[in-house]
Formats: sequence, structure tokens, C-alpha cells
Amino acid sequence: MTLEEQVLDRIKPSPEEKEKLQEVASELLSNVITAAKQLGIKNIIPKLVGSAARNTWISGTHDLDIFIAFPESTSREELKVNGLLIAREVAKDGKNIEERYAEHPYLNMNYRGFDVDLVPCFAVDSASMIKSAVDRTPFHNEFIKMSIPGREDDVLIMKQFMKGTGTYGSELRTQGFSGYLTELLIVHYGSFRNTMRNACNWKPGLTIDMLEHGTVKHEDPLIVIDPTDPKRNVAAALSLNQFAQFIDVCRLYTEEPSEDFFFPKEKAPMKENEIIDMMNSRGSSFVAIVFKAPDLVDDILYPQLDKMEHSVRALLDEYDFKVLNSGYWAKEDAIILLELISSELPNVKKHRGPPVWVSEHAQGFKEKYQDSDELFSLYIEDGFYVADIRRKFSTAKHLFNKRMRTCSLGKHLGEAVTEGFTILEGNEIAKIKESEFRIFLRKWEQKK
Amino acid sequence: MTLEEQVLDRIKPSPEEKEKLQEVASELLSNVITAAKQLGIKNIIPKLVGSAARNTWISGTHDLDIFIAFPESTSREELKVNGLLIAREVAKDGKNIEERYAEHPYLNMNYRGFDVDLVPCFAVDSASMIKSAVDRTPFHNEFIKMSIPGREDDVLIMKQFMKGTGTYGSELRTQGFSGYLTELLIVHYGSFRNTMRNACNWKPGLTIDMLEHGTVKHEDPLIVIDPTDPKRNVAAALSLNQFAQFIDVCRLYTEEPSEDFFFPKEKAPMKENEIIDMMNSRGSSFVAIVFKAPDLVDDILYPQLDKMEHSVRALLDEYDFKVLNSGYWAKEDAIILLELISSELPNVKKHRGPPVWVSEHAQGFKEKYQDSDELFSLYIEDGFYVADIRRKFSTAKHLFNKRMRTCSLGKHLGEAVTEGFTILEGNEIAKIKESEFRIFLRKWEQKK
Repeated sequence: MTLEEQVLDRIKPSPEEKEKLQEVASELLSNVITAAKQLGIKNIIPKLVGSAARNTWISGTHDLDIFIAFPESTSREELKVNGLLIAREVAKDGKNIEERYAEHPYLNMNYRGFDVDLVPCFAVDSASMIKSAVDRTPFHNEFIKMSIPGREDDVLIMKQFMKGTGTYGSELRTQGFSGYLTELLIVHYGSFRNTMRNACNWKPGLTIDMLEHGTVKHEDPLIVIDPTDPKRNVAAALSLNQFAQFIDVCRLYTEEPSEDFFFPKEKAPMKENEIIDMMNSRGSSFVAIVFKAPDLVDDILYPQLDKMEHSVRALLDEYDFKVLNSGYWAKEDAIILLELISSELPNVKKHRGPPVWVSEHAQGFKEKYQDSDELFSLYIEDGFYVADIRRKFSTAKHLFNKRMRTCSLGKHLGEAVTEGFTILEGNEIAKIKESEFRIFLRKWEQKK
Repeated sequence: MTLEEQVLDRIKPSPEEKEKLQEVASELLSNVITAAKQLGIKNIIPKLVGSAARNTWISGTHDLDIFIAFPESTSREELKVNGLLIAREVAKDGKNIEERYAEHPYLNMNYRGFDVDLVPCFAVDSASMIKSAVDRTPFHNEFIKMSIPGREDDVLIMKQFMKGTGTYGSELRTQGFSGYLTELLIVHYGSFRNTMRNACNWKPGLTIDMLEHGTVKHEDPLIVIDPTDPKRNVAAALSLNQFAQFIDVCRLYTEEPSEDFFFPKEKAPMKENEIIDMMNSRGSSFVAIVFKAPDLVDDILYPQLDKMEHSVRALLDEYDFKVLNSGYWAKEDAIILLELISSELPNVKKHRGPPVWVSEHAQGFKEKYQDSDELFSLYIEDGFYVADIRRKFSTAKHLFNKRMRTCSLGKHLGEAVTEGFTILEGNEIAKIKESEFRIFLRKWEQKK
């Protein structure tokens, strides 16, 4: 049995598991029709979409996406009201019911052990005429159901490979490959192996346009034109780093295949002394900004953490602190971690003024500094006045405590930071007990 | 009495002092003729040149430049031999006789308390036809003697102002204003005050061409076309910094005239604790490279020190040490002093490799670092491989001890450094006892 067959063996749903899923899905579809009838809502069509409908789901994932399609002529208001009425009726038998929001509200619930989304949508004639983003999904469903038969196993293996290597998932936290994108790659390249072989030589700007119908120029690292919508790049959410990461792991796997790519060994949290040793051996300065993480869904929280990381790096840069590496982690607390060349700078800072011969500016510059307590020395260098003055912030900690508010932060993190934050340095960071944070720190030990 | 009259009172030679100089100069000119006769050398003309001949010498300076002009038809060899024969004959009555070299050899001696140069030259028809650089001097002499009468006092005041402000002297150590250049400025602007007034608004590229006969484009900060040679810029030796410095002190003097510009108070050497306080308050790292200064004339030593300062800064820069300020000082020891943001850097250094998608380079990069002891971590950033590796030199001292030989150094300093050098840091520098070095350190306290 090849390695890939062995993997498939672990991830392919058993006939019993499939049967169970079919049964629950059928029940839900029929419940939707019953509910609509009871409520007197006509002309709706329930549809099972997503990987469950395409036979591309991995054993153990119990997600069901049930779409409730309304006629195109339905008004937005009517769809919203009636869609939720039907969903709530169906959800009567479910648990942990939650109203969620995309463009429209939809319901999420647990139903007989399955994680079920009940999503109202418009039944439009083609994906290029959609009235709401979710209307596209049924078209994707049709395309994959038509083109994937016989290659479902390759999709499963590819998905598992991406999961294992951290490249699966198009949400903002991951910025990797979506399920639909993975399926399209298998349709295009024909198999897991052939996709891998080709990905080893991908270059940014690569365009895959199976139906040769693309109409728009995209600037993304990978462009996969949606077979159901010529204007859309299915890979738009894939970041340059995840694109590069995928190429890298494809090469590594091709050179030396191993089960670890699919099922990586769980990383152990670093121990306190390991963290201290790591920091000492690098000899750089580690600084952590710690604050209470606001209670937000990942797609809102992670982009804001990303923005904060960038703002904080820009702040450090503005005040001459050189950042080597940075990252963020969040659970109950959120932590922005920075590795600096040094978290301390000398008091003195060189400030170059105008050339001596530009007399108006020269006068102003000298007057500003001449009798200032902030001045160490004032001299001419290369024809320019230069003032060696006192630096405003000679430690990163002082800078953060005084200037964090000037950082451009997302709404929720801005509020969280205003409520308070703590700066930890060096060994204080090694005392943070959260084991997931201590796994996150392994990033600093990573060797490809 | 105005300030400038008071200054003049201190620097203008008394009638007695002038008479004494006249007497000694006459005696020397007559001795040259006698010597030539004795030696049977014909057609030579002795000339008194320089400030002594022009009445632009400052009281107390006892320099006499006696030129021995040979007919233009004389061969170089003949001039060299016969010139020195005459000079040696004249020098029989002098002390501390030294043979020195410009383009030709000449004699320097002490004669009745005067510092006398006896310089053979060719008597050419015009300064544009000179056969040797010194041949130009008699033409300068004629031009100034013709145009300066009535303004000698302004030259004296200007020279003293330049001496007091460190801008006088065209030798390579100073790169300031020569005596001839100073005289030309007074001829052009008419007076000390008018020169000062104009200099406040000088800009680089200013051209003064009194005879409107300049023929060559010069790139220097100040261009003063030689009235006796249309191709030559008399201010070619003036550095941009001295040009700027002069503008600056002219402005300061114009705003608030004071005797201090002419006769600056002597700076006291810094005390050990003052040096330590200065370094601590700046918070930067001071590093000194100390070695035995080779016994060289200033015009050879200082350009080499300048070159060494630049090479050392380039070396530091190459290895990520950031230089704030630097300088050099020499007496028995030579010292290159460097002020750094920090003389220590973390062990880790970020090394960016090729983009992941350039597979040939990617392979080489990963192979080079993957299993190296020098590797801390290897990861992908912005689509590029990045290796966090061990820095070769994490202290400036270590860098100097290992790599000083790779610096591009002048011949003599290269030899001196090869024989050995010492690196001093921080408080060790405060222990250097040389009082002139401790005055030099006041540069770090300078406030205009």
C-alpha cells in the first residue's frame, strides 16, 4: 500500500459514516420543505451543497450546508424574513442555535451531531448574475459534482496534505486554499500527484483558466478563474506567503514523502527554560504587548491583529528600533510578540538639519536647538548642520507606554488596548503559562 | 577703538619688527647673489615672496620665502643641482638645516630667528607657462603687491579671524583658506567687513573670477579663478565642510562680534570624570583604535588617517554596526575614535534568501543553511526564504581584531596597524592621559 493509500485509509469516510450523513442530510432537506409548507412559503428549493454534497469530505468532519433557494424575483426583505422563518422552524429539533451574518442572516445549529448551516439564497440563472455572495455556491456545487467523479480520493488526500502543512482554509486567519479551490486544482491537474508535481514549479502570476473565459486582470499570486464566473479569481484569498509555503512543502514532499506532512506530530509547548535558552542564544530582545482579546469571530479578530502587528512595527521603525521578527497569538489574552535587535537605544540621536548655505532654514534649525536641554552637540557635517539631541524614547517599553494610542488599530483592538495592556520583556515572556502560546513560540526554532 | 582695530593692534607688526624682517630678508637676498657668484652660477635672480614680501604677515610669524629664480632655459637637472648648491652655501650661516621636497628639493633653515625656505624655481614669462608648481608663486606675489596696497590691514584681520575659527590653512590637515586665497578675497570684496557680509550668503558653486578669464569648469564648493592663471582654482583645496564652517562663523560674528572669534579661549582638556559623564549621558558606545603614529609630515599622515576613518566606518557598516560620529587624533599615538549606536549586536542576524519560486537558488540556499550549526531558524517571509543565522561578529572589538587587515589603509598606516593596535572601549578611553586628545574630545560637547 502506498503512503497515499495509507493516508486515504485514515481519512476516507466509511460506508456507515456516509450513510449516516446521507440520512441526516435527507431528513433536513425534507424538513425544510415541510417547514415551508407549514408557513405557506412557496417555490423554495432546498439544496445540499459543500463537500458533503460532493463526496469530498474528510472522515470525522460533520458539516452540512443546507441552502434554501428562493425565486430570483423575491425581494431581499422577503428572503431575509421568510428564510429565517423556515430555518427557525427546521432548527426546532437542533441544539446550540445561533443566528450568524454573512450578507444575509443565516442559522447555525448542531443537529444529530452535525454542524449545520441553514442558508437562504436566491436561485439565479448563472453565477455571473448573483444577487448575494452565497448564491454562487450552488453553481460551484454543480460544477464540481459534474467534473470530480472518480477523483474524490485525490481531493481528500490533497485536503489532508494542506491541513497537515497549514495551508488549508481560505479564512482571513489562514489565507490558504479553500475547499473549492482544492477541488478545482484536482480537476485541472487530474490527480494529487500531478498537482504536487506542478506546484513545485509554480511562480507568482500563474493563471489557470480551465474554460478559457476569464475577462478580468487579477494581481494575485495565483489566479484560478472560476469556471462558473469569468470575472472571479477563486484563489483571491490566498496570500503570497501561503502560496510560497505550498510550493515549499510540495517540493519537500516530492523529495522525501512522509506521513508527517499529512499528520504532523503535535508540537510540545516550550518549557520555561527552553524559552529562556532560545532568547539567550539569539541574543536579541523580545518584547510582548499583552492585552485582553475581545470576543470576536476569527475573521474579524485576526485581520485586526495583523493590522496591529504592522502598526506596532511601523511605530518601532519610526523611533529607530529595528525589528527582526514578529507575530501574534490570541486566546483569552492577545499577544503581539516582537523580536528586536535591541529594545534599548542610546539617549543620543543624530538629527540632520539644513545645509549651512540655506540661511533661512539654518537660522530656524539653530534657534530650535541651540539653548535646548535636549541638545548634546551641534556641528557641521558634509556641509549640513547636525544636532545630536536627546532621543524621546530610549526603550521600546517606554515608547509603547506613551505612544501605543497613536497606532492605527482596528475598532475592537483599539478599544481593548485603550482598556489596558502590559509590556513584558525577555524572561517575563518565558513565564507566560498558556501552552498554545508556548507552541506558537516554536516558530522561532523552525527549521525547514 | 573698534573691535577690529583692537585686534589689529595685537597682530600688526611693529615698525621695529618690520625693520628687522626687512634687514634679514635683504641680507639673505644679498647672500644668494654672493653665493651664486662664488659658485660661478650666472643669471639667477633672488626674490622675497610670500606674506613677508606683501606686508600681510602677522606679528610673531617669522617666515621668509626666498626664491632663487633660474632662466627658463635651465634644465631641470641643472636647476636641481645648482639651486641646492647656492642654498647650501647661503645656509652655512643658518641652523637646523633640512632638505625638503616639493617637486624639487629645497632647503629649510633657521636663520637669525627666522624660519627660512630657500626655493629654486624657473623664471617663466607667465604663470600659465610654469615648469614647476613653485614657479607660480612669484606671479602671485606680483599680483598681490600690485593690488593689495591700502588693504593689508584687512588681510591681517581676516587671517586672524580664520586662524581663530580654525578655517585658515590650505594644507591637507585643515583644508581651509590659503594665504593667497585670503588676500584675493580682500582684493575682490575690498575689505574684511565686506568679505564677511558677502560670505554669510555664499552658496556652493560660487565663482569669483576677477579678470573674467576663467577657462575651465571646476566642481569645488568655492571657485576663485587665479588672476595669474585662468585654468586654476585657487580655492581647490577648500573642503565643503570648511566652506560651510566659514559661512557659519561669518554669520555668528556678524550677529554678535566678539574677540573670541580671533583669539578663542584655549579649551581645557576634559577630566576623566567629565569624559565618563559625557559618554554616559549620550548612552552610546565609544570605541577607540589606538596604534603608534608613524613619523610622517602632516600632509601625508592626515590624508591617511582620513582614509582609515572612512575604511573603518565602512567595515562597521558592512557588519551592521551603526556609526553615529567619528574622528581621529594623532601625536605619538594615533587614535581613530568611533561613537556607535551600540558596540554589541545580537548573535542572530537575518539573512534573506531567494524567493521560494526560483527553485534552483532556493535549493542552494536551503542546502547551505539547513544543517548548519550557524542556523537559528529558516522560514518563509513575503515569499522569500529567510535564514536567521549566527552573526560573525557580535562586538565591534571582535570585528576589529579579526578584520582590521581587510580595511583599505594608506601605505604607512597599513604598516603601523600591522605592527599592532589596541581597542579601547568606554571608560578605558577616559583613561587616555594625553591632554591634546582630551581637548579633541570636546568635539562631542560642541555647541555652536
